[in-house]
Amino acid sequence: MEKFRVLEIKKSVFEDNDREADTMRRELKKQKTFLLNLMSSPGSGKTTTLQRTIDVLKNEMRIGVMEADIDSDVDADIISKTGVKVIQLHTGGMCHLDSGMAKQGMEALGCKDLDLAILENVGNLVCPAEFDTGASKNAMILSVPEGDDKPLKYPLMFRIVDVLLINKIDVIEYFEFDLKACEERVKKLNPNVTIIPISAKTGEGIDRWADWLRAEVKQWNEI
Amino acid sequence: MEKFRVLEIKKSVFEDNDREADTMRRELKKQKTFLLNLMSSPGSGKTTTLQRTIDVLKNEMRIGVMEADIDSDVDADIISKTGVKVIQLHTGGMCHLDSGMAKQGMEALGCKDLDLAILENVGNLVCPAEFDTGASKNAMILSVPEGDDKPLKYPLMFRIVDVLLINKIDVIEYFEFDLKACEERVKKLNPNVTIIPISAKTGEGIDRWADWLRAEVKQWNEI
Repeated sequence: MEKFRVLEIKKSVFEDNDREADTMRRELKKQKTFLLNLMSSPGSGKTTTLQRTIDVLKNEMRIGVMEADIDSDVDADIISKTGVKVIQLHTGGMCHLDSGMAKQGMEALGCKDLDLAILENVGNLVCPAEFDTGASKNAMILSVPEGDDKPLKYPLMFRIVDVLLINKIDVIEYFEFDLKACEERVKKLNPNVTIIPISAKTGEGIDRWADWLRAEVKQWNEI
Repeated sequence: MEKFRVLEIKKSVFEDNDREADTMRRELKKQKTFLLNLMSSPGSGKTTTLQRTIDVLKNEMRIGVMEADIDSDVDADIISKTGVKVIQLHTGGMCHLDSGMAKQGMEALGCKDLDLAILENVGNLVCPAEFDTGASKNAMILSVPEGDDKPLKYPLMFRIVDVLLINKIDVIEYFEFDLKACEERVKKLNPNVTIIPISAKTGEGIDRWADWLRAEVKQWNEI
């Protein structure tokens, strides 16, 4: 006998958004702006990681940031101190961004003169994974305190990302987090993903992450 | 001049769900089953907190648990070991539960003989806050590593909860988490909320949380 019953509820499909996202991606490619869609749970360290990333790369490329949030301006306020172009997107309660929303953000930010535009998506491991934003690549942050079982529980997010940063690696000894087991779970869902352990707090791993971004931006600009 | 532009996107309203949730709440009241809707970010410790809670209360009341997840069975598997009735709800990619889904879960769980039914909602601070599940009370867990700024960023969730557990209090010294500032931010949004710092790992604060639940279940059964 099974230990518990499993009840299936329902799901959705989004076709128009995918087409719009492809169009947007082609336009970004033409104008040589690399758009990174950065996703994670609330509190995994997206904004702190962005601060570190901007500090390393801002003298070698033109960077702009779109901060999506339900209705606060906390993150844009932090990023504005780095000196790069930043815009706060208020989603008015929406739990994710689709390509239409990302496009509104890109237009408001004014991205034609940017090499690297970063969209900090709403903190959420579910909905953002379902919507193609038109980004060149998808990045995700999982932080150590969230637990190494997250790939089992939010598989779509782990499947659709090109790079996974495992953040707060500096506190790993205080949590039961098996890095190897976590990496194996992720690779099973997504064999081609690049996994980079980092600490946005101490700076550990940020160089490797910056190298990944540099290579991607360079490749995006090649025909 | 403002430091950055603020762009408003869009929002939704859900009316029928509220009516259905009220009907469900009345039925639960009649049959004397208290339904707790437990919400949080991914990885804040919902399942571990439930294990602790069940251990303390299972000999004094009849408990049943509904574990909602995108498609894994990890949590129901853990809860089944406590010996209480448990069911896994697969949301098929859905990011939240509404009252219709909670009702399907309650019927499948068989809740007529339960004093306390607990719905572990999908790990998400956005969407679950927008949908009344028909629960008697709403509980939320915020964990220390997520940061003390979360009430500013996910205000609706903090506004709609009756009780807030601040979990992983055992690791507070390794994070920049200002408990007092966090509590003030929460109280500003929701003056009547009960805030209980806990550690599901060490057991700290669990007695106070169990007392809160006991009092609520008792009150629900009074006419």
